[in-house]
Amino acid sequence: MFLFIADFGFDKSAKLQETINTFYFVVISLGIVATILRYVERLKEIKRSVVIFDVVTIIITLTILYAHFLGEQAHRHISFLYNDNWVKFAIILTFIREFSEQNINYKRTTLNPGQLFIASFLTIIVLGAFLLMLPNATHQGISFIDALFTSTSAVCVTGLIVVDTGSYFTTFGQSIILCLIQAGGIGILTVASYFSYFFKGGASYENQLTLSDMTGSSKLGEVFSTLKRILVITFSIELVTAALIYTTLDGKLFNTFFERLFFSAFHSVSAFCNAGFSTLPNSLYESGFRYNYMLQSIIIAAFVLGGLGFPIVVNIIKYLKYFVVKKIFYFTGKEQTHKPWVLTLNSRITLVTTTVLTVVGTLLFYINEYHNTLSEHDGIGKFVTALFGAATPRTAGFNTVDMSALNFSTIMMLFLLMWIGASPASTGGGIKTNTFAIATLNFLSLAKGKSRIEVFRREIAEVSVRRAFAVITLSLLVIGTGIILISIFDDDKSLLTIAFECFSAYGTVGLSLGITAKLSALSKGVIILVMFIGRVSMLTLLIAMFKKVKHKNYKYPIEEITIN
Amino acid sequence: MFLFIADFGFDKSAKLQETINTFYFVVISLGIVATILRYVERLKEIKRSVVIFDVVTIIITLTILYAHFLGEQAHRHISFLYNDNWVKFAIILTFIREFSEQNINYKRTTLNPGQLFIASFLTIIVLGAFLLMLPNATHQGISFIDALFTSTSAVCVTGLIVVDTGSYFTTFGQSIILCLIQAGGIGILTVASYFSYFFKGGASYENQLTLSDMTGSSKLGEVFSTLKRILVITFSIELVTAALIYTTLDGKLFNTFFERLFFSAFHSVSAFCNAGFSTLPNSLYESGFRYNYMLQSIIIAAFVLGGLGFPIVVNIIKYLKYFVVKKIFYFTGKEQTHKPWVLTLNSRITLVTTTVLTVVGTLLFYINEYHNTLSEHDGIGKFVTALFGAATPRTAGFNTVDMSALNFSTIMMLFLLMWIGASPASTGGGIKTNTFAIATLNFLSLAKGKSRIEVFRREIAEVSVRRAFAVITLSLLVIGTGIILISIFDDDKSLLTIAFECFSAYGTVGLSLGITAKLSALSKGVIILVMFIGRVSMLTLLIAMFKKVKHKNYKYPIEEITIN
Ligand SMILES: [K+]
Ligand SMILES: [K+]
Repeated sequence: MFLFIADFGFDKSAKLQETINTFYFVVISLGIVATILRYVERLKEIKRSVVIFDVVTIIITLTILYAHFLGEQAHRHISFLYNDNWVKFAIILTFIREFSEQNINYKRTTLNPGQLFIASFLTIIVLGAFLLMLPNATHQGISFIDALFTSTSAVCVTGLIVVDTGSYFTTFGQSIILCLIQAGGIGILTVASYFSYFFKGGASYENQLTLSDMTGSSKLGEVFSTLKRILVITFSIELVTAALIYTTLDGKLFNTFFERLFFSAFHSVSAFCNAGFSTLPNSLYESGFRYNYMLQSIIIAAFVLGGLGFPIVVNIIKYLKYFVVKKIFYFTGKEQTHKPWVLTLNSRITLVTTTVLTVVGTLLFYINEYHNTLSEHDGIGKFVTALFGAATPRTAGFNTVDMSALNFSTIMMLFLLMWIGASPASTGGGIKTNTFAIATLNFLSLAKGKSRIEVFRREIAEVSVRRAFAVITLSLLVIGTGIILISIFDDDKSLLTIAFECFSAYGTVGLSLGITAKLSALSKGVIILVMFIGRVSMLTLLIAMFKKVKHKNYKYPIEEITIN
Repeated sequence: MFLFIADFGFDKSAKLQETINTFYFVVISLGIVATILRYVERLKEIKRSVVIFDVVTIIITLTILYAHFLGEQAHRHISFLYNDNWVKFAIILTFIREFSEQNINYKRTTLNPGQLFIASFLTIIVLGAFLLMLPNATHQGISFIDALFTSTSAVCVTGLIVVDTGSYFTTFGQSIILCLIQAGGIGILTVASYFSYFFKGGASYENQLTLSDMTGSSKLGEVFSTLKRILVITFSIELVTAALIYTTLDGKLFNTFFERLFFSAFHSVSAFCNAGFSTLPNSLYESGFRYNYMLQSIIIAAFVLGGLGFPIVVNIIKYLKYFVVKKIFYFTGKEQTHKPWVLTLNSRITLVTTTVLTVVGTLLFYINEYHNTLSEHDGIGKFVTALFGAATPRTAGFNTVDMSALNFSTIMMLFLLMWIGASPASTGGGIKTNTFAIATLNFLSLAKGKSRIEVFRREIAEVSVRRAFAVITLSLLVIGTGIILISIFDDDKSLLTIAFECFSAYGTVGLSLGITAKLSALSKGVIILVMFIGRVSMLTLLIAMFKKVKHKNYKYPIEEITIN
């Protein structure tokens, strides 16, 4: 707890590297002491996994401490910076431990899940901003607003940048960004899955939320098991992606093995989390990567998978498992005649919408840009670049073409795709594919004169329609307010570029027509807010703000309202 | 019927005034013969009111015929043009009679109410365009696209103009525009009330539409009684408004009594129908009218009343009647203790939303423009101008300030107000106040964790929410497509002015940042379409397009969809 207060002092004194070693030592020691004290306090409450984490942390911390402070003279052959980073890593570990403890305490006390989600995001963002302000994170130092912007952009996996990630930040700074992206991505997946778990039952959203409020502690176990599954799947996919990226890279572009490895890891995490951060100044449009279609295909696969959402990824894994099992049954001679219902309605809607948007988007991009940005690519290259261009605005945020050279009609298509965004319970943002699908199904069913929305032999619940409606209206409210404010603060920028920036921020896309860095501090603040709201979703914010209404037993008469 | 085919020939040969007199004579005679023939054909079917209309028409027509063709030599002292207009009036009357007969026939045959509504609008628009192309309608002639634009703008009571109404059209042309506005306004009120009548029951929209389809002819009587009430109320209000406008005008600005009378009538109809057409080149910003706050207040009252919608106007009249009755009871000594529930939920929502929007809009306009466009006005003038500025974008379309001089933030507010528009079953357009209210109530109730939308001790029906949702998504679709197309066709115009034009067209507002006349023919076509769709509403179009689905007895399982 008290380490949190020490945090500020720690950041400010960090400018004098040598003199604060003692301070670091104290901080880490206090961390260890705090951990041990916690065990003494409530010995039986703590879980096995938490114990393992703590023990590992303490061992790592002690090793680092030994290597750095006590054995400093002996290890002079390792660069100071490198050493120093390890110390900082130890400190971060200490903070994470303290922070997670904080979280659990919150949950047991006053905050509801929505508030907890928001509070944790805010804390990580502020923490990230301070970390990025550490002198070793950047080559020349960074202003608070730019650090906060970068931190928010990383945690909200948006990818908008005010300073060039590759050249402005040191490897340490880039590592911080990587951690923030990973934390943001996993955090979102966890919370989204947690929410989606409650949605499964079929009862109304509000009932379930109330249920979760009352039975808070017993549900906590399931959250942890979901978290575990998410962590395993996320890291597995990222590892495979990183390995694949590594093999496709042109060795000549990297000076050291570490550089190439870091590039692979960074882009793997950034792609799967749909963050869109790149260490290259021009994202994947950079020469040497622009024509590396293999690399681009792998990155497309990673961010599409991340954008499909965790439940679908699990669904796909189950499906694959089913096929493997079937094959085994086939070989062993046993026959399985009954084909199980593998894809849920949710997954089906998501997959169909995603497929339609991607195919139509790719075609339009191909046709629109054939004589423009695609002209420098050959046959297959044109296709991969068009696919990339159509898939990336749905919250990935990398670009393989020059954004400012795009045709107007293509930019308009990007607006729509950015607004729709990825699928629910994914690392992507936007109003989500399901919302878009329900909006479309709604007016089609009304036009056909149907009294209910039916799809795939299922009827869609009223609450889903109402939520979709709310999500769309709130998105317009936030984006509209954002555009107005930025237009007032930066009246020299064109409306098109400002609108693009706001849609990109709200959909946590990260594409830009190039004005992000030139914005005034106030506008940057607006974009930070839009990114944050786009990420946690305005509806979650509103739900968190209001007190729960007790369910009532009375019922008012229903009346229709003229809508024409 | 055959007169419709003759219409084309009539338009083309109209260039030679003297030689076609015989042709006119034939046309009108045929009209009279056709009317008489109808009576012979089905003597018992025809209503008393129709008979009165026909008899009056025939008498007028014969009088005109006598005055013009036969007594031509005797009446030379009345100008030829004046005479000629009366002939045209007779011809229009003939057409109206034929046309309305057409309508009823349609109803009895194949078209559903939605299709009938659309078909009648399209016919009036095309007819209006041809009438405006008559050489006597303009001083120098008009292109087809501009005539179609003006006709659409008048019938859809939008008010966007490509040529200056006052100087480009002759008094005859202006009269045609006035008739088109009146036809459009009443047409909308009729259909809207007709629809709203079916909404009242509380059962679902689709059931009622099916019911109306099956019992078509029996409902027809109620449509006519509603139409009668609408006509009486509309003309009464317009008459009072015209009289009031007349008294507030500065006599020095008009050359003749007729000119001043025409100005009053034109602006009265244009205001109540929310058309926003003005015979002044700069609308009410024209010097001589800019500071005429009394005139402006009357016009505000007229268009606000028109924008509230017919059911509310009826409600208000009932309310006033109730008070008068109460007063009488009071004087006669009898006491009435039971206060009836006068305002329906629909009216309450509309009134509250309208009041909130107007008050907030006026305040914001006042604050935003205090040192800008309001600076030339004094105390009360500032207030009236701010009120005018906040009320006019909700589909009225007159302006008392220089639109291009407005602050950016004011323009942004206008966007929102134009999009929201007027109330249902009114002469105004936009997504409508009720849709906006339901959208707001929806996310507030979701945020509060309520499972239903409750307001004024009533629950809002699911179908209303779904319709509101559809209206909002479709409005975005149409406006977005419009903006994209115009941006492609006219890439020299700024995005802001194009977006303003599209919002104005969709909301049938008629305000413009000054680019309407400079648009290319293709863009004018787009605006024509947007005005039309904004007027008849995309949902009506869709409902009209699809075949009705038979109600099913099966029911699929309900499933919730993840929306986050
Ligand atoms: K992104
Ligand atoms: K108007």
